[in-house]
Amino acid sequence: MNHYPQPIIALIKNLSRLPGIGGKTAERLAIHILRAPRREAEQLAHSILELKAKIRFCRRCFALSDSELCKICSDVERSDELLCVVEQPADMAAIEKSGAFKGRYHILQGVLSPMDGIGPDDIRLNELFDRLRHGDVKELVLATGTSVEGEATAAYIQQHVARMPVKVSRIASGVPVGGDLKYVDQVTLKKAMESRHAF
Amino acid sequence: MNHYPQPIIALIKNLSRLPGIGGKTAERLAIHILRAPRREAEQLAHSILELKAKIRFCRRCFALSDSELCKICSDVERSDELLCVVEQPADMAAIEKSGAFKGRYHILQGVLSPMDGIGPDDIRLNELFDRLRHGDVKELVLATGTSVEGEATAAYIQQHVARMPVKVSRIASGVPVGGDLKYVDQVTLKKAMESRHAF
Repeated sequence: MNHYPQPIIALIKNLSRLPGIGGKTAERLAIHILRAPRREAEQLAHSILELKAKIRFCRRCFALSDSELCKICSDVERSDELLCVVEQPADMAAIEKSGAFKGRYHILQGVLSPMDGIGPDDIRLNELFDRLRHGDVKELVLATGTSVEGEATAAYIQQHVARMPVKVSRIASGVPVGGDLKYVDQVTLKKAMESRHAF
Repeated sequence: MNHYPQPIIALIKNLSRLPGIGGKTAERLAIHILRAPRREAEQLAHSILELKAKIRFCRRCFALSDSELCKICSDVERSDELLCVVEQPADMAAIEKSGAFKGRYHILQGVLSPMDGIGPDDIRLNELFDRLRHGDVKELVLATGTSVEGEATAAYIQQHVARMPVKVSRIASGVPVGGDLKYVDQVTLKKAMESRHAF
């Protein structure tokens, strides 16, 4: 790496801070950027700066947004009666890609994790309970992850919401579609077996 | 991807133009950059812009450089009598990392490839021959790749230099150090066998 001029070394160093990008890949990317048309490199640099300047969190659901209310919160076509709770913006994007949900979202921006010192006040739980108290939500879909923390967070929300007139559901766990049974882990298989339903 | 605000989509699009970065990786990188401290993202963006603004080719050897003469060409400790010909700046960096060469370099910025319409005038061959005619080079080390094009380019250079008072050598091909014979391809094994030497 020290066999390159300083500006290349600087870029390699900055690129290798990104997740999953090691030294070799960073070197390859830097050389690519060097050879790419100037316009392309400038677009990349500007889109990084613009991202940091323009993106903020939606005032209501805490999704990533470039305006005060995100696209989904300001969409009049969506149902106010269905609210889906997820951990992170990428989870919301994944559900949106599936096209299976037409309600609104609430992004917790984390999960309860006592081991890491993350309690109920560190994630957007109070804002969620406020929305449930003052909104028209009829069904709350808990779509936090299936990790220990995700399950614990879902259980915590369920307990808190128990006395409210809101139906609470949890996304199903089971064998992935197209998945080969012999490669599925035992805990998932156990879940899939327990949640079996009439065919 | 359309479930993100526009600045994120723009960055994902620009990142996925990089080699080896698909849509999913670009999404992951964009989300990482979004969460990273503003300073870190700005450093990345600025190092991309600075790279395009500052890097040029060394006037003598065509290596990447941030000044008119690159670090190696202006290093008085290096031998002017040894000249190593490589295809690309990354090849030079690889040889430098090995620490096995203390002469100067000449970067061709390509290889002869008639199939792709790349002839002798399209790469830095004339500049190489000029250096040989007017410099103090005693040995020319051909370190172009071992592809068909790399070998052809090495052969072409050898023919042109034949009448000059310069010794021409070629880097050795063979089994990689630590390589398992049964995983080495046949052509490489054949080369290694042909180039066997007294032990």
